[in-house]
Amino acid sequence: MNTAIIRFILGHVLKIEGLFLFLPAIVSGIYQEHEGFYFVGVASVSLLLGFIMTKKTPKSQVFYLKEGCIATSLSWILLSFFGCLPFYLSGEIPSFTDAMFETISGFTTTGATILSDVEGLSYCALFWRSFTHWIGGMGVLVFVLVLTKLDKKNTMYLIRAEVPGPEKDKLVPKTMSTARILYGMYFGLTAIEVLLLLLGGMNLYDSLIFSFGTAGTGGFANYSSSVGHFDSAYIDGVITVFMILFGINFNLYFFLLLRDFKPVWKNEELKTYLLMILSAACLITLNINHLYGNPLHAFRYAIFQVASIITTTGYATADHTLWPMFSQCVLLFLMMVGACASSTGGGMKVARFMMMMKCIKREIMQMVHPKSVSIIRMNGKKVDEDVLRTLNVYLMAYIGIIAGSVLLVSIDNMDFGTTFSSVLTTLNNIGPGINDVGPNGNFAGFSPLSKLVFCCDMLAGRLEIFPFLMLFTASAWNRKF
Amino acid sequence: MNTAIIRFILGHVLKIEGLFLFLPAIVSGIYQEHEGFYFVGVASVSLLLGFIMTKKTPKSQVFYLKEGCIATSLSWILLSFFGCLPFYLSGEIPSFTDAMFETISGFTTTGATILSDVEGLSYCALFWRSFTHWIGGMGVLVFVLVLTKLDKKNTMYLIRAEVPGPEKDKLVPKTMSTARILYGMYFGLTAIEVLLLLLGGMNLYDSLIFSFGTAGTGGFANYSSSVGHFDSAYIDGVITVFMILFGINFNLYFFLLLRDFKPVWKNEELKTYLLMILSAACLITLNINHLYGNPLHAFRYAIFQVASIITTTGYATADHTLWPMFSQCVLLFLMMVGACASSTGGGMKVARFMMMMKCIKREIMQMVHPKSVSIIRMNGKKVDEDVLRTLNVYLMAYIGIIAGSVLLVSIDNMDFGTTFSSVLTTLNNIGPGINDVGPNGNFAGFSPLSKLVFCCDMLAGRLEIFPFLMLFTASAWNRKF
Repeated sequence: MNTAIIRFILGHVLKIEGLFLFLPAIVSGIYQEHEGFYFVGVASVSLLLGFIMTKKTPKSQVFYLKEGCIATSLSWILLSFFGCLPFYLSGEIPSFTDAMFETISGFTTTGATILSDVEGLSYCALFWRSFTHWIGGMGVLVFVLVLTKLDKKNTMYLIRAEVPGPEKDKLVPKTMSTARILYGMYFGLTAIEVLLLLLGGMNLYDSLIFSFGTAGTGGFANYSSSVGHFDSAYIDGVITVFMILFGINFNLYFFLLLRDFKPVWKNEELKTYLLMILSAACLITLNINHLYGNPLHAFRYAIFQVASIITTTGYATADHTLWPMFSQCVLLFLMMVGACASSTGGGMKVARFMMMMKCIKREIMQMVHPKSVSIIRMNGKKVDEDVLRTLNVYLMAYIGIIAGSVLLVSIDNMDFGTTFSSVLTTLNNIGPGINDVGPNGNFAGFSPLSKLVFCCDMLAGRLEIFPFLMLFTASAWNRKF
Repeated sequence: MNTAIIRFILGHVLKIEGLFLFLPAIVSGIYQEHEGFYFVGVASVSLLLGFIMTKKTPKSQVFYLKEGCIATSLSWILLSFFGCLPFYLSGEIPSFTDAMFETISGFTTTGATILSDVEGLSYCALFWRSFTHWIGGMGVLVFVLVLTKLDKKNTMYLIRAEVPGPEKDKLVPKTMSTARILYGMYFGLTAIEVLLLLLGGMNLYDSLIFSFGTAGTGGFANYSSSVGHFDSAYIDGVITVFMILFGINFNLYFFLLLRDFKPVWKNEELKTYLLMILSAACLITLNINHLYGNPLHAFRYAIFQVASIITTTGYATADHTLWPMFSQCVLLFLMMVGACASSTGGGMKVARFMMMMKCIKREIMQMVHPKSVSIIRMNGKKVDEDVLRTLNVYLMAYIGIIAGSVLLVSIDNMDFGTTFSSVLTTLNNIGPGINDVGPNGNFAGFSPLSKLVFCCDMLAGRLEIFPFLMLFTASAWNRKF
């Protein structure tokens, strides 16, 4: 294994995090909060360490998938460790486990919180907490590639480990250019949302907080009643639309920029994703209509919650745990499906879900006509059998992790809905679940062991399981290979 | 499609069911119950129809996997239809849906009941209810092959569709001989259990009822407190051991009969199965020790419930819904794993579980060493990639059916534990779940729609999904193929 290059990448990650940590320090300056000093302190240490680690350029540029996975997993852990220090050192989150949970929840764009009184935090802390969503949404290593000249031919492995989805394509031949285009579009879309929220009467600070949360499909808010705080149909509408937009494959925006509409129009995943949102919202509207008096009102809440859950954002305008069980189960189902591949959303991804359906169909067809050889296509292109095999194993590992986590968390003796949904919501990077971890609940009641399980689940979910599992594989660390 | 041969097989199934239906009639004679007349009536109709359908031997003996699957699925539906008639016509189960649910639950060896007062039924009805477990355990088509001369080379497809497990082997070259040996061993083991229960002071009727339930890993009892009724450590012990024995691959017993101990000793699935039972029982003992006062007492209840759940029998000596959530989650996990392949137990099967683990391991290894080609082995033999692909798709379909069923059942607005576990327990042919469908609950409270969903799940679970799904595939019915 090429440890030098991993050290080099980790150094860059620390440098970038150091720079980012100055942003909340600026916020603290504006609001005259003393907590800003902790941010400046951690930022300086992070920058210094980053410079030391990147001083020596590694001799060997050998870089394979293994290095990509290990570098990505370690980056995310390191990022979370330094990111949680200001919360912990300032005493705003007194327990280290809790601070780490909150930060991992931020970077992985989960949005699950251990805070029971979110309004009690300082402006700069809340800013940083939401800003982690924005960084985590598009991926920190993609950002490293934007800023550095680390553009060797194999750096694609970093994107492969960090950007979600069953298949990964580069937009343009150069990895760095791909990364720049992605971040450019991401920044642009976020800026439009901020503007639209400002137009709705939100102040700049709140607009930034909610745009970061939407863009990264995270879900952290600076009010305990989340988006419900504003009680405005306009704001609900803007956030609903942007949640859906950030759940779409970013490659499609690139095609739109190039005025190439055909691949967008023909994209099967997009169609299925939009169809799922619409049909789930309609089903839930029918199911909750009696609670809200009129269908339009019910639809407003239904589509917000649906968009929030399928994109794994986790914002809430209503407490869906009070809805009938059918609506809750529709939302649990959407939790597992998740958003589109190569979006900022989490979950299994619509593309994977579709490929699975196609695999089932093929299997039955082969039982009916044993001699038929059938190919699985997505968007008219053949899906490689290797991709399907990996997808299958991904599902197995996914189920395995759910089962193992549920067993460990059940030691806390919460009810089954809480136990099961807390695992599902962290592994899929959503945020709220049902019962005790519903939109009005939080994760404070769990034991440190469960919180550790959730931290691992959030990271495993964000990195799509295998890169994270590789950390625990002895032979991946073998220097000889 | 060769419809003539399917008609022929269905005719044989009806004939055999007709014969079996005389058994409860004999019981009614002994206990002087008038309900016996309904059994005689249905038996006669069944026999008559069977003779008519088998009168004309089909010209074409062409018989493929498709015909095997369709014949098997239809056999099970027909079997359940005629099997439920005595309950319905005698008025002992006044609703047809309920009678059908109870009979499908019997034949599929699920053991879930809609009866709130099981003691209210006649002796002959309870006998038939439990006897369906015994028939369903080994499979009705295997029985058809025992009795008839339908021994063409492709009848293996019938066994393939009916006997559970990822890979199917014939014990001896001739299918009929395989079927005879299987049923011989099945009958023998059941007889030994009856004897041992008689020695424990149980009367003959009860011994038969509980032996049928154990042998088929079904779980119907003639007391609402199940095996707990006897409150005897000896009876608990005998039933625990036999539940475990009936959850073992029957092919291994054949090797034992041949005094060939090596394949038994080297069987990975057996080792894993026993290890899982032991470790689950120990974990639960630790977790419930405080409820029972001493570890030995706790272990007695722990291992009974573990054996009952992993083999998907569903007998109970304690209400595990009152146990801590950890114990309940261990049991839920065992529900999904199920017993060994080619046993009478349901669930996903230990062999599939192990292959999945091996697939995950291989995937990680291939990420670490991309050029390595690794083969998955079970018991030292290479597992065919086709078997693995089918296994993967099986898991997808399994998850898909769980998700779809949970959505439909959730319309009844039960709590999440009840909704989720009722689907899991029927699809895996177990019987009891948690909360409202726990060992002291029943399925009477669900709507007819949910009961229909459960009926489909039980059949899909028993036939391992694909043969059952094929019924709903239009092209399977195409006459041209």
